[in-house]
Amino acid sequence: MNYPSKLIENAISEISKLPGIGKKSALRLALHLLKADESKTLMLSQALVDLRTKTTYCNQCHNISDEELCQICSSLNRDEEIICIVQDTRDVLAIENTAQYQGQYHVLGGIISPIAGIGPNDLNIDTLVSRLASNPEIKEIIMALSPTMEGDTTAFYIQKKVAEFKVKVSTIARGIPIGGDLEYTDEITLGRSIISRTQSDLK
Amino acid sequence: MNYPSKLIENAISEISKLPGIGKKSALRLALHLLKADESKTLMLSQALVDLRTKTTYCNQCHNISDEELCQICSSLNRDEEIICIVQDTRDVLAIENTAQYQGQYHVLGGIISPIAGIGPNDLNIDTLVSRLASNPEIKEIIMALSPTMEGDTTAFYIQKKVAEFKVKVSTIARGIPIGGDLEYTDEITLGRSIISRTQSDLK
Repeated sequence: MNYPSKLIENAISEISKLPGIGKKSALRLALHLLKADESKTLMLSQALVDLRTKTTYCNQCHNISDEELCQICSSLNRDEEIICIVQDTRDVLAIENTAQYQGQYHVLGGIISPIAGIGPNDLNIDTLVSRLASNPEIKEIIMALSPTMEGDTTAFYIQKKVAEFKVKVSTIARGIPIGGDLEYTDEITLGRSIISRTQSDLK
Repeated sequence: MNYPSKLIENAISEISKLPGIGKKSALRLALHLLKADESKTLMLSQALVDLRTKTTYCNQCHNISDEELCQICSSLNRDEEIICIVQDTRDVLAIENTAQYQGQYHVLGGIISPIAGIGPNDLNIDTLVSRLASNPEIKEIIMALSPTMEGDTTAFYIQKKVAEFKVKVSTIARGIPIGGDLEYTDEITLGRSIISRTQSDLK
């Protein structure tokens, strides 16, 4: 394609390197920026640079953070006795969005996946062990990993690693999603949801 | 939603101001940038700033350009006798992509739309007239505007404005799109395509 300007060609090429954005969307975004106020582009650009160069990771839970301790780890309102183990920051945000969890987190930074060449040593598992060792207050860790082979393997590995500590290990419930249609639920999920049925109490 | 970092919150807020990108996509893009090399973010950011601050518009055709004359207007390989009139840069790129047109362009920067408050004086029509006045070589102008009420109004207005010059005015063909299904074509398009039928020559 012939672009009338090297600058727009370059911008489109850079934008379309982002996941899920093709050449056509990139062109649309570039033309949008050209039409909008110059300040908008400068603010966007600065926010991206700040995001990449100024964010760091929390020393305790490895979540994205502005400081050495993230806002969740340094908060006085969070329950320090429970740690929820997640794959990445996206999962922290998803759980925070539910407003149902008041404990802390531990971000692994991935899951064990031999195919992708990710082993236990590539993940933040050692720091979880030392976190448990240094803080006897911790009573429970919740495995909030994806219900896949890799997620289960990672959970199993972590469970063995933390067996020496007196800490309860739980896994987030698996079953049919709320609003889901029983008929269209896959048989593995449905089978598990029958095995792990919960008692209905009329209170 | 509680973000663990002000910087990521700010980046997501800026990214989600772009058209067609919501909070979830913005988060995905932000996390992608955080995982990728720092240089990628810096290059993207610089490309956006350059795009917005360094691009200018061609003095002759008002297309986006790096110089005073765009690459198309300054090219020696383009036919200076034909000018294709389009609404914006996007249309130039679409036509260039077909590789079927070797003439020059004139970018109006919009179309006449009383509802959006855009009148003829907001568009690059005066410069088209002076372009025709100063260059008697121009033999034809092609209206490549959207086949809508606004497009037709704009084309009609321009046609009246250029009536004083000895220049042929043509409009890009309207009819059923190639690969389109006759049955599902709307009746106005189908009706027009019968009226404007072209002779099939066995040559």
